Amino acid sequence: MISSRDEVTRMIVSAKVARGLKWSDVAERIGQSKEWTTAACLGQMTFTRSQAETAGDIFGLSDEAVAWLQIVPYKGSLREAVPTDPLIYRWYEIVNVYGTTIKELIHEEFGDGIMSAIDFSMDIQREADPKGDRVKVVLSGKFLPYKTY
Amino acid sequence: MISSRDEVTRMIVSAKVARGLKWSDVAERIGQSKEWTTAACLGQMTFTRSQAETAGDIFGLSDEAVAWLQIVPYKGSLREAVPTDPLIYRWYEIVNVYGTTIKELIHEEFGDGIMSAIDFSMDIQREADPKGDRVKVVLSGKFLPYKTY
Amino acid sequence: MISSRDEVTRMIVSAKVARGLKWSDVAERIGQSKEWTTAACLGQMTFTRSQAETAGDIFGLSDEAVAWLQIVPYKGSLREAVPTDPLIYRWYEIVNVYGTTIKELIHEEFGDGIMSAIDFSMDIQREADPKGDRVKVVLSGKFLPYKTY
Amino acid sequence: MISSRDEVTRMIVSAKVARGLKWSDVAERIGQSKEWTTAACLGQMTFTRSQAETAGDIFGLSDEAVAWLQIVPYKGSLREAVPTDPLIYRWYEIVNVYGTTIKELIHEEFGDGIMSAIDFSMDIQREADPKGDRVKVVLSGKFLPYKTY
Amino acid sequence: MISSRDEVTRMIVSAKVARGLKWSDVAERIGQSKEWTTAACLGQMTFTRSQAETAGDIFGLSDEAVAWLQIVPYKGSLREAVPTDPLIYRWYEIVNVYGTTIKELIHEEFGDGIMSAIDFSMDIQREADPKGDRVKVVLSGKFLPYKTY
Amino acid sequence: MISSRDEVTRMIVSAKVARGLKWSDVAERIGQSKEWTTAACLGQMTFTRSQAETAGDIFGLSDEAVAWLQIVPYKGSLREAVPTDPLIYRWYEIVNVYGTTIKELIHEEFGDGIMSAIDFSMDIQREADPKGDRVKVVLSGKFLPYKTY
Amino acid sequence: MISSRDEVTRMIVSAKVARGLKWSDVAERIGQSKEWTTAACLGQMTFTRSQAETAGDIFGLSDEAVAWLQIVPYKGSLREAVPTDPLIYRWYEIVNVYGTTIKELIHEEFGDGIMSAIDFSMDIQREADPKGDRVKVVLSGKFLPYKTY
Amino acid sequence: MISSRDEVTRMIVSAKVARGLKWSDVAERIGQSKEWTTAACLGQMTFTRSQAETAGDIFGLSDEAVAWLQIVPYKGSLREAVPTDPLIYRWYEIVNVYGTTIKELIHEEFGDGIMSAIDFSMDIQREADPKGDRVKVVLSGKFLPYKTY
Amino acid sequence: MISSRDEVTRMIVSAKVARGLKWSDVAERIGQSKEWTTAACLGQMTFTRSQAETAGDIFGLSDEAVAWLQIVPYKGSLREAVPTDPLIYRWYEIVNVYGTTIKELIHEEFGDGIMSAIDFSMDIQREADPKGDRVKVVLSGKFLPYKTY
Amino acid sequence: MISSRDEVTRMIVSAKVARGLKWSDVAERIGQSKEWTTAACLGQMTFTRSQAETAGDIFGLSDEAVAWLQIVPYKGSLREAVPTDPLIYRWYEIVNVYGTTIKELIHEEFGDGIMSAIDFSMDIQREADPKGDRVKVVLSGKFLPYKTY
Repeated sequence: MISSRDEVTRMIVSAKVARGLKWSDVAERIGQSKEWTTAACLGQMTFTRSQAETAGDIFGLSDEAVAWLQIVPYKGSLREAVPTDPLIYRWYEIVNVYGTTIKELIHEEFGDGIMSAIDFSMDIQREADPKGDRVKVVLSGKFLPYKTY
Repeated sequence: MISSRDEVTRMIVSAKVARGLKWSDVAERIGQSKEWTTAACLGQMTFTRSQAETAGDIFGLSDEAVAWLQIVPYKGSLREAVPTDPLIYRWYEIVNVYGTTIKELIHEEFGDGIMSAIDFSMDIQREADPKGDRVKVVLSGKFLPYKTY
Repeated sequence: MISSRDEVTRMIVSAKVARGLKWSDVAERIGQSKEWTTAACLGQMTFTRSQAETAGDIFGLSDEAVAWLQIVPYKGSLREAVPTDPLIYRWYEIVNVYGTTIKELIHEEFGDGIMSAIDFSMDIQREADPKGDRVKVVLSGKFLPYKTY
Repeated sequence: MISSRDEVTRMIVSAKVARGLKWSDVAERIGQSKEWTTAACLGQMTFTRSQAETAGDIFGLSDEAVAWLQIVPYKGSLREAVPTDPLIYRWYEIVNVYGTTIKELIHEEFGDGIMSAIDFSMDIQREADPKGDRVKVVLSGKFLPYKTY
Repeated sequence: MISSRDEVTRMIVSAKVARGLKWSDVAERIGQSKEWTTAACLGQMTFTRSQAETAGDIFGLSDEAVAWLQIVPYKGSLREAVPTDPLIYRWYEIVNVYGTTIKELIHEEFGDGIMSAIDFSMDIQREADPKGDRVKVVLSGKFLPYKTY
Repeated sequence: MISSRDEVTRMIVSAKVARGLKWSDVAERIGQSKEWTTAACLGQMTFTRSQAETAGDIFGLSDEAVAWLQIVPYKGSLREAVPTDPLIYRWYEIVNVYGTTIKELIHEEFGDGIMSAIDFSMDIQREADPKGDRVKVVLSGKFLPYKTY
Repeated sequence: MISSRDEVTRMIVSAKVARGLKWSDVAERIGQSKEWTTAACLGQMTFTRSQAETAGDIFGLSDEAVAWLQIVPYKGSLREAVPTDPLIYRWYEIVNVYGTTIKELIHEEFGDGIMSAIDFSMDIQREADPKGDRVKVVLSGKFLPYKTY
Repeated sequence: MISSRDEVTRMIVSAKVARGLKWSDVAERIGQSKEWTTAACLGQMTFTRSQAETAGDIFGLSDEAVAWLQIVPYKGSLREAVPTDPLIYRWYEIVNVYGTTIKELIHEEFGDGIMSAIDFSMDIQREADPKGDRVKVVLSGKFLPYKTY
Repeated sequence: MISSRDEVTRMIVSAKVARGLKWSDVAERIGQSKEWTTAACLGQMTFTRSQAETAGDIFGLSDEAVAWLQIVPYKGSLREAVPTDPLIYRWYEIVNVYGTTIKELIHEEFGDGIMSAIDFSMDIQREADPKGDRVKVVLSGKFLPYKTY
Repeated sequence: MISSRDEVTRMIVSAKVARGLKWSDVAERIGQSKEWTTAACLGQMTFTRSQAETAGDIFGLSDEAVAWLQIVPYKGSLREAVPTDPLIYRWYEIVNVYGTTIKELIHEEFGDGIMSAIDFSMDIQREADPKGDRVKVVLSGKFLPYKTY
């Protein structure tokens, strides 16, 4: 009896390590970007039936687990409000240090509203650099203006 | 008597509204990107003497305030651990929903380490789109591998 | 020297009590709904120049305060993560008790995504009822589907 | 041995996914609105004996579980004071951004008191819209005036 | 310029000490119970015009302060979620130790619902006792049943 | 192996639902008030040997569980500092809204000290009322004056 | 206008440093132990009229401040739930490390109940020791048994 | 497989209740004070091999559990930063109300430094008193002066 | 099925106690410093395949556990934001008391930037001292200057 | 009227920027290490009379401020439990990631006890390195063994 998506996420994570899989290979088989696919496998996105069945094959999941992959999950992947993991913390720090800057510049360009985190995509790539390679991340979110009524 | 950078930030913010300035114009006069300049004006970065003097002219600051701009500030621009402002919250949400995804993919590509938030730059731009313009943000941070010893 | 929208909100709240104004009358003069207008006066929305000037007349604000009304504010009107005021707490309680219900039913009808809090409107009305009048609130938010990529 | 309603909720949630049920169908068989029924199934409301027996049939529950459905539960469906799930967070954000507005307007219309979260109903519907369908939610709560004594 | 009820509460508290007043005398002049009157003076209840004017006379308040007494306040009288003051903490402890007991017994007698904190009164009295006098508090709140719909 | 009173509480709660018992009947058999008995069964009070044995009969507990009922428990029955359950929250709200009032009036009558939560009793009753029955709660706690030394 | 005991505490603390006073001398003039006197001066205890007048002389306080010393204060002397000051933290640590030990041993000796923090005294002394002097603290609190009813 | 001291603490607590042991008897057999012994059994102190073996006999522990008793534990015996149990809370309250007093008086006598919580002992005793017996606790901690360098 | 590094850490910790191993011996066999090795065994660092296999031998781990040692872990070894264990707390206290000092002196020497916690090493040693041996810790982190752009 | 050491710290910080002073120069004039001196100037340590007078000269302080420098301060230099400033956060991260490692290794070498944060010194230096200079920090704290009694 599976009673939450978290249990399926643990099955996937466990199978990934045991089978020595890579997220980019999983993504290729699922047919989506590595960013969306990883988020989905980690319990943040909803699979279509066919994507779920493919994931079921890749990770050796039961039918019940495959059914759970098609249910919209309760999202949120971090254990604490302020993450302790150094890699994830650096992102929290960027939001903390640059938060008001991001707010000012988006409002200066677009007016009042937000950058959507739903109609949103992310692309993470290696940027070769002689002084040490860099992580380059491109975020793209639709601007949604506040409505007046 | 000024006893913290926050007081200078408040002077700058106040002068910006009163004088109707734009961050992109301020950046041009300071000679840095609009992202760095805004963060610096909002109390997150350290000005050189010449940058501080230019800022002093732009915002009409006292000599004491100009001296404070050259002092490394206590960083952190948000009022709460979880920001209430919807625009900034969306960024926190991205870190929350995609945090483990970002971690997995950077580690898959680079191994153990972090994406620096110090040797880091950000570029925010409008991306025209017939279905509604998008906010495009490019983040670039040096990858720093964990050291074994 | 005004350095935050909060100061302007305090001026407005103070003038409203001193002058004995009603939000519905303010809204009529501003030309928007009473819900949007009240939120705007309480520091959560951005005024156009003409709306700001009207508000300046109504509340007797300085030019600097009127300028601040046109700046996108840092939003969030509550003092604590869990509000102590009984009226506002009941709303928090509704989110707490019905949160997973709302999530299930919107997903059942629309699939994965959210109800926007930006492309959003609210209408608060008295509903006459012989057993005691009721507060009727209609919320309308655009459904935004999660994007696959 | 079942020692909390949470265990029954997990059984129901698990059976719902395994059997591919919809909340609206469950509601029809229970004979209540989909909003009340979903909240009840998710552990927030108390079933009558006959409702509980129907739910027992639908989800294949033991007699002990059916008995638990008739016990008033410890309410509260969220994991954290500030929810991380984006759909539920938007509701928290509405309370945060509009909280003081809601307070002002209800008091302006009704005087001091609250909108009941107990003598309360909710109706969630799809609102067709050429610019993208909307989620329309109608909340109705009895106004309860503060008593003077 | 007064911009919150808290400022008026501070004026009242200050005047009460300076003038050596007692709450029970204030209540008699206001014409309400000492419990309601004290809560109102401490910023938790809303005065009628005539009550506010009497309070203005008692405490020597300005017209603006008297106007604020007639505005519904943002309620909540404690500085922290868990009070540090020993007398108030004992009440918090009673809720903590007896909370589930109170819940069980009210539900056993009345079914699902709550004891209202709005249609509510409180009476605090000295109970003479040879082993040491006791504080006797009678709370009376209307039972509000959860509505099914 | 039982290693905490919580486990015994769960056994009692589970047996109560499975056997369809009422707290008032349990109290009668134990020979104490329904308030003390319920608190004791929910893990907040210490049973005498004979009370524990009676409880063991009523709920079908093992000898080890009966031994645990005679051990002074770690008290505190709520899951969070601020309770989410609406019935219990109303009590927290009463402490929050009336906390300073209670403090003022007890001090006005008794001087500095507290109302004991240890030498304390509670009585919960139905109060018939044509406008809707009320929950009447009488709290009685010994006044303990602060000692000077 | 003084509106809280905290303001009087700040006056006392300020005068103590400016006048170079010692708490033990203050206590001698007030005629109470140095522990009670210091707690009282730091805003935790209530002065009698004559003690307050003596304190007024010692610290040069206004009549209004002297009146405030006779009002029961809102108690709690720390800035945070977990104190940051190393000396005070050590006490918090003792409660944290030895908390369950203290609970077990008092219950083993006295049964269920508490050690009063109201009918309580404290004595802090230097204990000469060749390996380094020690701080010896004697706490004495009345045992209050839990009442059965 | 035992992976934390907490598991051994639970075994000890469970055996103590099942076997009807008293801490003072355990202490006598271990050959240390009842305060140190109880703290050690509750997972806060480190046993020597011989003490651990004695404890193993008393509580019927496995060799692996006896090995764990000799490992320095992660200390801290409370479930929350602010304890909910009334007996332990009173100690927290003493630290909260008297914290600054303790700080002032130790500094007045000894200068800057702390009272050690490591080179520390505690003695808990019954103090007979015709008005009700008292709990007398003697704390003794070495004074450690802050070092200048 | 292993679904997190924490499970492997618990296996290692359990085996270490059961087998009576020392970290310094483990480090010698792994071929790294005792500091890095202990951190890695406690779930904070990533092993190479050969290091993981050696660790597998030392602690008797399964192949699946050995595979997990080579996965970058979610870092953070403490249970709470403010650690309760006295030894670890002292380090938190050092950061709290000396935090701004460290910040000032590093900035005075190096300008704006940070001391890396990634390109970082630590060396813990006994420093013999006639007045009592000391713990000497040498921390070395690369200085990373903030980038201007 | 100065009522807390924080006010003096603000005066010092303000004067330091206005006069363009360096901590190392201040330390030389005070005659202590730059680490102790900076901590003392930032309100964490207690000055002797002669050190305070020198500091008074350096920063242009009043006699009252100089008196405050000789009073033991309430220590703790950070604004939040988890610091937001990136430089200080890295130290918090070191404690978080390496906390259990530090604990294990000190206990392995010394047994149960702590590294003192009171009998403690710190030395911060630049370590030249061709791959980028490093910050080298040497911490030295007396080992204090837990006492058995």
